Amino acid sequence: MHQDPTALVAIDWGSSALRGARLDAQGTVLEQRSFARGVLTVAAGEFPSVFDACFGDWTSAGAAPCLISGMAGSKQGWREAPYCPCPAGFDDLAAQLMWLDMGAGRAAVAIVPGLSCEHPCDLPALSSIPDVMRGEEVQIFGAIQLTGLRDGIFVLPGTHSKWAQVSDGRVTGFHTYMSGEFFSLLSQQSILSRTLDQDAPPDDTAFALGVQRAAQAGGLLHHAFGARTLSLFSRMGAAALTSYLSGLVIGAELAAQSFAAGTEVVVIGAPALTGRYAQALALHGVQARMLDAQATWAGLLALVNFLPKGLIG
Amino acid sequence: MHQDPTALVAIDWGSSALRGARLDAQGTVLEQRSFARGVLTVAAGEFPSVFDACFGDWTSAGAAPCLISGMAGSKQGWREAPYCPCPAGFDDLAAQLMWLDMGAGRAAVAIVPGLSCEHPCDLPALSSIPDVMRGEEVQIFGAIQLTGLRDGIFVLPGTHSKWAQVSDGRVTGFHTYMSGEFFSLLSQQSILSRTLDQDAPPDDTAFALGVQRAAQAGGLLHHAFGARTLSLFSRMGAAALTSYLSGLVIGAELAAQSFAAGTEVVVIGAPALTGRYAQALALHGVQARMLDAQATWAGLLALVNFLPKGLIG
Repeated sequence: MHQDPTALVAIDWGSSALRGARLDAQGTVLEQRSFARGVLTVAAGEFPSVFDACFGDWTSAGAAPCLISGMAGSKQGWREAPYCPCPAGFDDLAAQLMWLDMGAGRAAVAIVPGLSCEHPCDLPALSSIPDVMRGEEVQIFGAIQLTGLRDGIFVLPGTHSKWAQVSDGRVTGFHTYMSGEFFSLLSQQSILSRTLDQDAPPDDTAFALGVQRAAQAGGLLHHAFGARTLSLFSRMGAAALTSYLSGLVIGAELAAQSFAAGTEVVVIGAPALTGRYAQALALHGVQARMLDAQATWAGLLALVNFLPKGLIG
Repeated sequence: MHQDPTALVAIDWGSSALRGARLDAQGTVLEQRSFARGVLTVAAGEFPSVFDACFGDWTSAGAAPCLISGMAGSKQGWREAPYCPCPAGFDDLAAQLMWLDMGAGRAAVAIVPGLSCEHPCDLPALSSIPDVMRGEEVQIFGAIQLTGLRDGIFVLPGTHSKWAQVSDGRVTGFHTYMSGEFFSLLSQQSILSRTLDQDAPPDDTAFALGVQRAAQAGGLLHHAFGARTLSLFSRMGAAALTSYLSGLVIGAELAAQSFAAGTEVVVIGAPALTGRYAQALALHGVQARMLDAQATWAGLLALVNFLPKGLIG
């Protein structure tokens, strides 16, 4: 009889997408599926049936355990998995897994909690402001596995970009930047949308100008208006302006960092986006190492080693 | 026979509103009208008929001259009035008035040009970035008249806030900040809109917290996400969050300034908004003097003294 080599059913259930993979113990993807069933498309109470329809055949009795990361653990998700406070490592994450009651005849299924941290701000009646991530923590731990780096800055660009500080293999803290969302709002809904070509291919030169402009005095509120006037005075075309605005926003994110000499920065995400960050970081004199979405599967697989033995198989 | 005391028909034709007043030589408003016929509601070619319907009876032959400020002079307006470059004073503005051909039997009607300036940025193939205003220049010159101040910083909060430097009665330069537009986008279209109460009354305490937070490291992209997490962790209510976000945005605008000791700041606009700026400026140790929309009429009236004599009456 042929034995199923699956070591983990890994699920990434984000706001807008749902994808899963069967992984063997070495992290090889045996099978992969993706669905347009992000958390935002699933009504309360429908998570079990959507899960069963997508992955029921992978999670029957005796199958490998299943770990789910991402927004499935949020208030609007399947079941809320409370944030694990920083500093946090693999062991903390594994200890706070939210095991789901799947009923008899099913494999063990758990939701991975997100991370939280506090930014001191010392204001009247507001001593600190929290920060959160859900899903990115698994990518960071995956990146630690894949790169062997146990110290450095791990960046996850996106709608809400995360900049995490990793020390001795643990996430000690992180900052969120609403860069992707600001860019979408500015390029699609603001006065700038009238003179931008949103479908234009990337323009590296214009992007670099935006990143460099963002490093100068004035701030994003002022620099963004420059994208309007450059168009008004016909000094930059509609195609270039989109990349220039992208540079202004990503540049504002970078301008908020202080890079120690020789800092290793790992950028995790889709290559089109991580490439832009690598270009922007280079303009700040910082070398970046890029990793794509494989980091999610590597992170979930690494968590298996921390599971209580009774729950596996 | 009773003589018409009107010295000027003053028109403020902005993006979203059209208002006009008959003023006597002392600036007393003899009659005032306003219409929901902002430039954005008027199709190309329809400006003369809209103007006639609203103010035709004020601008017949022999009537006082009429000056129009605001977006009526933009590309999308009645007729484009090229920007007057900074430094600029009353005399420059008056010399660049765009007289309209109104036909026989009509008073003289002119559009006041906006101002432009250049911000040096010393980037490859981009030595400077232009900045523009239309309508605010008249308010600034009006504020100079009303306050007697010929030197200082003049701030015009709004969708696109303007910070102008005035020296010896001339505008030497200015910076635009997209603060009002950012606030609208963030409070109405971003993820923050889900947990804000947009209709809440102002909360001065929460506003002050936002202004103070904005002065700390991190930048608006990061601080805005704090409005999300403060709600997620139930540390700030929906009503307070709206004012906190307003404080973050206006605070980011203020954080971009460098105030010399004893700088006089004049803030021009609707009292609800200028009051907020005065509160934010006070947190930065800067005293503000507030002026409302009367500044527009005062500015247009002051221009009359610079008109060629033949054009009047």
